[in-house]
Amino acid sequence: MKNLILASGSPRRKMLMEWAELNFVVRVSDVDESYPDRLTPNEVARFIASNKNKAVFEALLPSELQESIIISADTIVVLNDEIIGKPVDRDDAISILKKLSSQKHAVITAVHIRSIHNEISFTETTTVHFHSITNDEIVHYVDLYKPYDKAGAYAIQEWIGVVGIEKIEGDFYNVMGLPVSKVIKTLNENFF
Amino acid sequence: MKNLILASGSPRRKMLMEWAELNFVVRVSDVDESYPDRLTPNEVARFIASNKNKAVFEALLPSELQESIIISADTIVVLNDEIIGKPVDRDDAISILKKLSSQKHAVITAVHIRSIHNEISFTETTTVHFHSITNDEIVHYVDLYKPYDKAGAYAIQEWIGVVGIEKIEGDFYNVMGLPVSKVIKTLNENFF
Repeated sequence: MKNLILASGSPRRKMLMEWAELNFVVRVSDVDESYPDRLTPNEVARFIASNKNKAVFEALLPSELQESIIISADTIVVLNDEIIGKPVDRDDAISILKKLSSQKHAVITAVHIRSIHNEISFTETTTVHFHSITNDEIVHYVDLYKPYDKAGAYAIQEWIGVVGIEKIEGDFYNVMGLPVSKVIKTLNENFF
Repeated sequence: MKNLILASGSPRRKMLMEWAELNFVVRVSDVDESYPDRLTPNEVARFIASNKNKAVFEALLPSELQESIIISADTIVVLNDEIIGKPVDRDDAISILKKLSSQKHAVITAVHIRSIHNEISFTETTTVHFHSITNDEIVHYVDLYKPYDKAGAYAIQEWIGVVGIEKIEGDFYNVMGLPVSKVIKTLNENFF
Protein backbone atom coordinates (compact mmCIF):
# COMPACT_ATOMS: atom_id res chain seq x y z
CA MET A 1 0.00 0.00 0.00
CA LYS A 2 1.56 3.26 -1.15
CA ASN A 3 1.37 6.31 1.06
CA LEU A 4 1.09 9.47 -1.02
CA ILE A 5 2.23 12.65 0.72
CA LEU A 6 1.62 16.15 -0.60
CA ALA A 7 4.49 18.29 0.71
CA SER A 8 2.65 21.59 0.33
CA GLY A 9 0.48 23.77 2.51
CA SER A 10 -1.32 25.27 -0.51
CA PRO A 11 -5.09 24.77 -0.26
CA ARG A 12 -5.31 24.99 -4.05
CA ARG A 13 -2.86 22.11 -4.57
CA LYS A 14 -4.79 20.07 -2.01
CA MET A 15 -8.04 20.80 -3.83
CA LEU A 16 -6.58 19.79 -7.20
CA MET A 17 -5.28 16.50 -5.77
CA GLU A 18 -8.77 15.87 -4.39
CA TRP A 19 -10.40 16.69 -7.75
CA ALA A 20 -8.05 14.10 -9.24
CA GLU A 21 -9.39 11.56 -6.71
CA LEU A 22 -5.94 10.84 -5.29
CA ASN A 23 -5.68 9.50 -1.74
CA PHE A 24 -3.02 11.45 0.08
CA VAL A 25 -2.06 13.26 3.24
CA VAL A 26 -0.56 16.72 3.58
CA ARG A 27 2.74 17.23 5.38
CA VAL A 28 4.65 20.47 5.38
CA SER A 29 8.09 21.41 6.66
CA ASP A 30 9.44 24.91 6.87
CA VAL A 31 11.73 25.50 3.94
CA ASP A 32 13.97 28.41 3.12
CA GLU A 33 12.81 29.56 -0.33
CA SER A 34 15.97 31.44 -1.22
CA TYR A 35 18.10 30.18 -4.11
CA PRO A 36 21.60 30.64 -5.54
CA ASP A 37 22.27 33.39 -8.07
CA ARG A 38 22.58 32.67 -11.75
CA LEU A 39 19.99 29.89 -11.93
CA THR A 40 17.53 30.02 -14.81
CA PRO A 41 13.83 30.38 -13.87
CA ASN A 42 13.28 26.65 -14.51
CA GLU A 43 16.23 25.80 -12.28
CA VAL A 44 14.95 28.10 -9.53
CA ALA A 45 11.55 26.38 -9.45
CA ARG A 46 13.19 22.93 -9.46
CA PHE A 47 15.65 23.92 -6.74
CA ILE A 48 12.89 25.08 -4.38
CA ALA A 49 10.60 22.13 -5.17
CA SER A 50 13.50 19.77 -4.47
CA ASN A 51 14.21 21.45 -1.12
CA LYS A 52 10.56 21.25 -0.11
CA ASN A 53 10.57 17.56 -0.95
CA LYS A 54 13.81 16.87 0.90
CA ALA A 55 12.57 18.51 4.10
CA VAL A 56 9.56 16.20 4.26
CA PHE A 57 11.51 13.14 3.10
CA GLU A 58 14.12 13.56 5.83
CA ALA A 59 11.41 13.82 8.47
CA LEU A 60 9.88 10.44 7.53
CA LEU A 61 9.88 7.79 10.24
CA PRO A 62 11.93 4.67 9.41
CA SER A 63 8.70 2.67 9.29
CA GLU A 64 7.34 5.02 6.60
CA LEU A 65 10.33 4.94 4.27
CA GLN A 66 9.39 1.93 2.16
CA GLU A 67 5.91 3.02 1.14
CA SER A 68 6.01 6.82 1.02
CA ILE A 69 5.80 8.85 -2.16
CA ILE A 70 6.31 12.56 -1.64
CA ILE A 71 5.05 15.19 -4.07
CA SER A 72 6.26 18.76 -3.80
CA ALA A 73 5.88 21.71 -6.14
CA ASP A 74 6.98 25.28 -6.59
CA THR A 75 5.28 27.80 -8.87
CA ILE A 76 6.93 30.95 -10.18
CA VAL A 77 5.85 33.71 -12.53
CA VAL A 78 8.30 34.90 -15.17
CA LEU A 79 7.90 38.18 -17.06
CA ASN A 80 10.54 39.03 -19.68
CA ASP A 81 13.04 36.63 -18.04
CA GLU A 82 12.50 38.22 -14.64
CA ILE A 83 11.19 36.04 -11.83
CA ILE A 84 8.22 37.64 -10.09
CA GLY A 85 7.86 36.26 -6.59
CA LYS A 86 5.24 36.76 -3.93
CA PRO A 87 4.55 40.45 -3.23
CA VAL A 88 6.21 41.76 -0.09
CA ASP A 89 3.47 44.32 0.63
CA ARG A 90 0.48 46.18 -0.84
CA ASP A 91 2.57 48.55 -2.96
CA ASP A 92 4.55 45.64 -4.35
CA ALA A 93 1.38 43.71 -5.23
CA ILE A 94 0.01 46.76 -7.07
CA SER A 95 3.28 47.32 -8.87
CA ILE A 96 3.49 43.64 -9.94
CA LEU A 97 -0.04 43.67 -11.37
CA LYS A 98 0.70 46.90 -13.25
CA LYS A 99 3.64 45.11 -14.86
CA LEU A 100 1.51 42.09 -15.84
CA SER A 101 -1.25 44.24 -17.40
CA SER A 102 -1.46 43.92 -21.22
CA GLN A 103 1.49 41.49 -21.22
CA LYS A 104 1.98 37.78 -21.47
CA HIS A 105 3.95 35.97 -18.79
CA ALA A 106 4.98 32.41 -18.09
CA VAL A 107 3.81 30.42 -15.10
CA ILE A 108 6.29 27.65 -14.34
CA THR A 109 5.55 24.92 -11.84
CA ALA A 110 8.32 22.50 -10.91
CA VAL A 111 7.16 19.19 -9.48
CA HIS A 112 9.42 16.86 -7.53
CA ILE A 113 8.28 13.30 -6.75
CA ARG A 114 10.40 11.07 -4.54
CA SER A 115 10.25 7.64 -2.97
CA ILE A 116 13.06 5.59 -1.45
CA HIS A 117 13.32 3.82 -4.81
CA ASN A 118 12.98 6.62 -7.26
CA GLU A 119 13.16 10.39 -7.79
CA ILE A 120 11.78 12.40 -10.68
CA SER A 121 11.32 16.10 -11.28
CA PHE A 122 9.87 18.06 -14.17
CA THR A 123 8.58 21.52 -14.98
CA GLU A 124 5.43 22.57 -16.76
CA THR A 125 5.01 26.00 -18.35
CA THR A 126 1.77 27.80 -19.19
CA THR A 127 1.64 31.15 -20.96
CA VAL A 128 -0.91 33.62 -19.61
CA HIS A 129 -2.02 36.72 -21.53
CA PHE A 130 -3.49 39.54 -19.47
CA HIS A 131 -5.93 42.11 -20.79
CA SER A 132 -5.17 45.72 -20.01
CA ILE A 133 -6.29 46.15 -16.40
CA THR A 134 -6.86 49.55 -14.87
CA ASN A 135 -5.36 50.97 -11.70
CA ASP A 136 -8.78 50.95 -10.07
CA GLU A 137 -9.23 47.27 -10.88
CA ILE A 138 -5.80 46.44 -9.48
CA VAL A 139 -6.39 48.30 -6.23
CA HIS A 140 -9.84 46.74 -5.89
CA TYR A 141 -8.38 43.27 -6.32
CA VAL A 142 -5.40 43.72 -4.02
CA ASP A 143 -7.45 45.23 -1.20
CA LEU A 144 -10.29 42.72 -1.43
CA TYR A 145 -8.41 39.50 -2.20
CA LYS A 146 -5.03 40.22 -0.53
CA PRO A 147 -2.91 38.05 -2.86
CA TYR A 148 0.20 38.20 -0.67
CA ASP A 149 0.86 34.45 -0.68
CA LYS A 150 0.69 34.19 -4.47
CA ALA A 151 3.55 34.34 -6.95
CA GLY A 152 2.73 37.15 -9.37
CA ALA A 153 0.22 38.63 -6.89
CA TYR A 154 -2.84 36.96 -8.43
CA ALA A 155 -4.82 33.75 -8.53
CA ILE A 156 -6.31 32.76 -11.88
CA GLN A 157 -9.50 31.44 -10.26
CA GLU A 158 -10.22 34.73 -8.45
CA TRP A 159 -11.94 37.85 -9.79
CA ILE A 160 -8.84 39.25 -11.49
CA GLY A 161 -8.32 35.97 -13.34
CA VAL A 162 -11.92 35.79 -14.47
CA VAL A 163 -12.11 39.38 -15.73
CA GLY A 164 -8.45 40.11 -16.54
CA ILE A 165 -7.07 37.14 -18.45
CA GLU A 166 -7.50 37.10 -22.20
CA LYS A 167 -6.23 33.57 -22.89
CA ILE A 168 -3.78 30.93 -21.80
CA GLU A 169 -1.69 28.39 -23.65
CA GLY A 170 -1.03 25.22 -21.70
CA ASP A 171 -2.36 23.48 -18.61
CA PHE A 172 -4.85 25.63 -16.66
CA TYR A 173 -4.31 23.70 -13.43
CA ASN A 174 -0.59 24.40 -13.71
CA VAL A 175 -1.41 28.10 -13.25
CA MET A 176 -3.33 27.15 -10.10
CA GLY A 177 -0.17 25.50 -8.77
CA LEU A 178 -0.08 21.87 -9.90
CA PRO A 179 -0.01 20.29 -13.39
CA VAL A 180 -2.21 17.47 -12.15
CA SER A 181 -2.52 15.39 -15.30
CA LYS A 182 1.28 15.23 -15.66
CA VAL A 183 1.64 14.37 -11.97
CA ILE A 184 -0.75 11.44 -12.40
CA LYS A 185 0.97 10.25 -15.56
CA THR A 186 4.33 10.35 -13.77
CA LEU A 187 2.95 8.51 -10.74
CA ASN A 188 1.37 5.80 -12.88
CA GLU A 189 4.45 5.26 -15.01
CA ASN A 190 7.09 5.42 -12.32
CA PHE A 191 5.76 5.02 -8.79
CA PHE A 192 2.56 2.94 -8.63
CA MET B 1 -29.91 51.45 -12.86
CA LYS B 2 -29.30 48.59 -15.28
CA ASN B 3 -30.89 45.23 -14.65
CA LEU B 4 -28.60 42.45 -15.82
CA ILE B 5 -30.34 39.16 -16.61
CA LEU B 6 -28.55 35.87 -17.19
CA ALA B 7 -30.77 33.85 -19.52
CA SER B 8 -29.28 30.49 -18.59
CA GLY B 9 -30.03 27.77 -16.07
CA SER B 10 -26.42 26.60 -16.00
CA PRO B 11 -25.00 26.68 -12.46
CA ARG B 12 -21.52 27.06 -13.92
CA ARG B 13 -22.43 30.21 -15.86
CA LYS B 14 -24.05 31.59 -12.72
CA MET B 15 -20.89 30.85 -10.72
CA LEU B 16 -18.66 32.54 -13.30
CA MET B 17 -20.84 35.66 -13.30
CA GLU B 18 -20.56 35.70 -9.51
CA TRP B 19 -16.78 35.28 -9.61
CA ALA B 20 -16.76 38.30 -11.94
CA GLU B 21 -18.66 40.25 -9.25
CA LEU B 22 -21.53 41.08 -11.60
CA ASN B 23 -24.94 41.85 -10.11
CA PHE B 24 -27.56 39.91 -12.01
CA VAL B 25 -30.62 37.72 -11.80
CA VAL B 26 -31.23 34.43 -13.55
CA ARG B 27 -34.24 33.98 -15.80
CA VAL B 28 -34.80 30.98 -18.02
CA SER B 29 -37.36 30.19 -20.69
CA ASP B 30 -37.79 26.85 -22.38
CA VAL B 31 -36.14 26.98 -25.76
CA ASP B 32 -36.12 24.47 -28.58
CA GLU B 33 -32.41 23.80 -29.19
CA SER B 34 -32.83 22.40 -32.70
CA TYR B 35 -31.35 24.34 -35.62
CA PRO B 36 -31.58 24.44 -39.41
CA ASP B 37 -29.33 22.22 -41.53
CA ARG B 38 -26.27 23.58 -43.27
CA LEU B 39 -25.27 26.06 -40.58
CA THR B 40 -21.59 26.15 -39.65
CA PRO B 41 -20.75 25.26 -36.02
CA ASN B 42 -20.30 28.97 -35.20
CA GLU B 43 -23.69 29.76 -36.74
CA VAL B 44 -25.33 26.94 -34.79
CA ALA B 45 -24.07 28.27 -31.46
CA ARG B 46 -25.13 31.81 -32.36
CA PHE B 47 -28.53 30.65 -33.55
CA ILE B 48 -29.28 28.84 -30.28
CA ALA B 49 -27.87 31.65 -28.09
CA SER B 50 -30.02 34.14 -30.00
CA ASN B 51 -33.14 32.02 -29.48
CA LYS B 52 -32.45 31.68 -25.75
CA ASN B 53 -32.07 35.45 -25.54
CA LYS B 54 -35.22 36.15 -27.52
CA ALA B 55 -37.34 33.89 -25.30
CA VAL B 56 -36.39 35.84 -22.19
CA PHE B 57 -36.54 39.23 -23.93
CA GLU B 58 -40.08 38.62 -25.14
CA ALA B 59 -41.19 37.68 -21.63
CA LEU B 60 -40.01 41.00 -20.14
CA LEU B 61 -42.67 43.17 -18.57
CA PRO B 62 -43.17 46.58 -20.22
CA SER B 63 -41.82 48.23 -17.09
CA GLU B 64 -38.59 46.21 -17.39
CA LEU B 65 -37.86 46.97 -21.04
CA GLN B 66 -35.85 50.16 -20.60
CA GLU B 67 -33.29 48.90 -18.14
CA SER B 68 -32.87 45.22 -18.88
CA ILE B 69 -29.74 43.71 -20.40
CA ILE B 70 -30.07 40.04 -21.23
CA ILE B 71 -27.08 37.73 -21.57
CA SER B 72 -27.50 34.30 -23.11
CA ALA B 73 -24.95 31.74 -24.24
CA ASP B 74 -24.68 28.42 -25.99
CA THR B 75 -21.65 26.15 -25.85
CA ILE B 76 -20.91 23.44 -28.40
CA VAL B 77 -18.07 20.99 -28.87
CA VAL B 78 -16.67 20.49 -32.36
CA LEU B 79 -14.49 17.54 -33.36
CA ASN B 80 -13.26 17.40 -36.97
CA ASP B 81 -16.07 19.74 -38.10
CA GLU B 82 -18.69 17.56 -36.42
CA ILE B 83 -20.83 19.13 -33.69
CA ILE B 84 -20.89 16.98 -30.58
CA GLY B 85 -23.98 17.74 -28.55
CA LYS B 86 -25.13 16.54 -25.16
CA PRO B 87 -25.09 12.74 -24.85
CA VAL B 88 -28.49 11.12 -25.20
CA ASP B 89 -27.65 8.22 -22.85
CA ARG B 90 -24.83 6.32 -21.10
CA ASP B 91 -23.62 4.55 -24.26
CA ASP B 92 -23.56 7.83 -26.16
CA ALA B 93 -21.56 9.55 -23.40
CA ILE B 94 -19.00 6.71 -23.44
CA SER B 95 -18.81 6.79 -27.22
CA ILE B 96 -18.31 10.58 -27.28
CA LEU B 97 -15.46 10.44 -24.76
CA LYS B 98 -13.79 7.64 -26.73
CA LYS B 99 -13.85 9.94 -29.74
CA LEU B 100 -12.35 12.85 -27.78
CA SER B 101 -9.51 10.73 -26.34
CA SER B 102 -6.05 11.63 -27.73
CA GLN B 103 -7.61 14.32 -29.94
CA LYS B 104 -7.98 18.04 -29.90
CA HIS B 105 -11.41 19.59 -30.22
CA ALA B 106 -12.86 23.08 -30.27
CA VAL B 107 -15.18 24.44 -27.62
CA ILE B 108 -17.25 27.28 -29.06
CA THR B 109 -19.42 29.48 -26.90
CA ALA B 110 -21.71 31.97 -28.57
CA VAL B 111 -22.81 34.88 -26.40
CA HIS B 112 -25.78 37.08 -27.19
CA ILE B 113 -26.33 40.32 -25.28
CA ARG B 114 -29.45 42.37 -25.86
CA SER B 115 -31.12 45.47 -24.50
CA ILE B 116 -33.92 47.54 -26.01
CA HIS B 117 -31.23 49.86 -27.39
CA ASN B 118 -28.61 47.44 -28.59
CA GLU B 119 -27.87 43.86 -29.58
CA ILE B 120 -24.47 42.20 -29.92
CA SER B 121 -23.36 38.62 -30.35
CA PHE B 122 -19.95 37.02 -30.63
CA THR B 123 -18.32 33.63 -30.38
CA GLU B 124 -15.21 32.57 -28.51
CA THR B 125 -13.27 29.41 -29.37
CA THR B 126 -10.91 27.46 -27.13
CA THR B 127 -8.94 24.44 -28.30
CA VAL B 128 -8.76 21.54 -25.86
CA HIS B 129 -6.24 18.69 -26.20
CA PHE B 130 -7.15 15.44 -24.46
CA HIS B 131 -4.62 12.90 -23.27
CA SER B 132 -5.28 9.29 -24.19
CA ILE B 133 -7.95 8.19 -21.71
CA THR B 134 -8.73 4.53 -21.11
CA ASN B 135 -12.07 2.78 -21.32
CA ASP B 136 -12.01 2.20 -17.57
CA GLU B 137 -11.46 5.90 -16.94
CA ILE B 138 -14.30 6.83 -19.27
CA VAL B 139 -16.75 4.41 -17.64
CA HIS B 140 -15.66 5.55 -14.17
CA TYR B 141 -16.27 9.17 -15.11
CA VAL B 142 -19.61 8.66 -16.84
CA ASP B 143 -21.06 6.51 -14.05
CA LEU B 144 -19.84 8.73 -11.22
CA TYR B 145 -20.31 12.22 -12.72
CA LYS B 146 -23.24 11.57 -15.12
CA PRO B 147 -22.33 14.30 -17.66
CA TYR B 148 -25.65 14.10 -19.50
CA ASP B 149 -26.30 17.84 -19.48
CA LYS B 150 -22.87 18.69 -20.90
CA ALA B 151 -21.92 19.25 -24.54
CA GLY B 152 -19.13 16.80 -25.30
CA ALA B 153 -20.07 14.70 -22.25
CA TYR B 154 -17.49 16.25 -19.92
CA ALA B 155 -16.85 19.23 -17.67
CA ILE B 156 -13.31 20.60 -17.61
CA GLN B 157 -13.47 21.29 -13.88
CA GLU B 158 -14.43 17.72 -12.99
CA TRP B 159 -12.16 14.69 -12.55
CA ILE B 160 -11.88 13.90 -16.26
CA GLY B 161 -10.80 17.47 -16.98
CA VAL B 162 -8.21 17.46 -14.22
CA VAL B 163 -6.62 14.14 -15.18
CA GLY B 164 -7.48 13.92 -18.88
CA ILE B 165 -6.68 17.27 -20.46
CA GLU B 166 -3.17 17.90 -21.66
CA LYS B 167 -3.47 21.57 -22.52
CA ILE B 168 -5.80 24.23 -23.81
CA GLU B 169 -5.34 27.25 -26.05
CA GLY B 170 -7.69 30.11 -25.29
CA ASP B 171 -10.00 31.18 -22.50
CA PHE B 172 -10.44 28.50 -19.82
CA TYR B 173 -13.73 29.93 -18.61
CA ASN B 174 -15.06 29.67 -22.14
CA VAL B 175 -14.75 25.88 -21.82
CA MET B 176 -16.78 26.12 -18.62
CA GLY B 177 -19.52 27.83 -20.60
CA LEU B 178 -18.94 31.58 -20.58
CA PRO B 179 -16.02 33.70 -21.87
CA VAL B 180 -16.43 36.05 -18.93
CA SER B 181 -13.70 38.57 -19.66
CA LYS B 182 -15.07 39.16 -23.16
CA VAL B 183 -18.60 39.45 -21.76
CA ILE B 184 -17.46 42.16 -19.35
CA LYS B 185 -15.54 44.00 -22.04
CA THR B 186 -18.62 43.96 -24.29
CA LEU B 187 -20.89 45.13 -21.46
CA ASN B 188 -18.54 47.98 -20.52
CA GLU B 189 -18.07 49.16 -24.09
CA ASN B 190 -21.63 48.84 -25.33
CA PHE B 191 -24.21 48.55 -22.57
CA PHE B 192 -23.16 50.24 -19.31
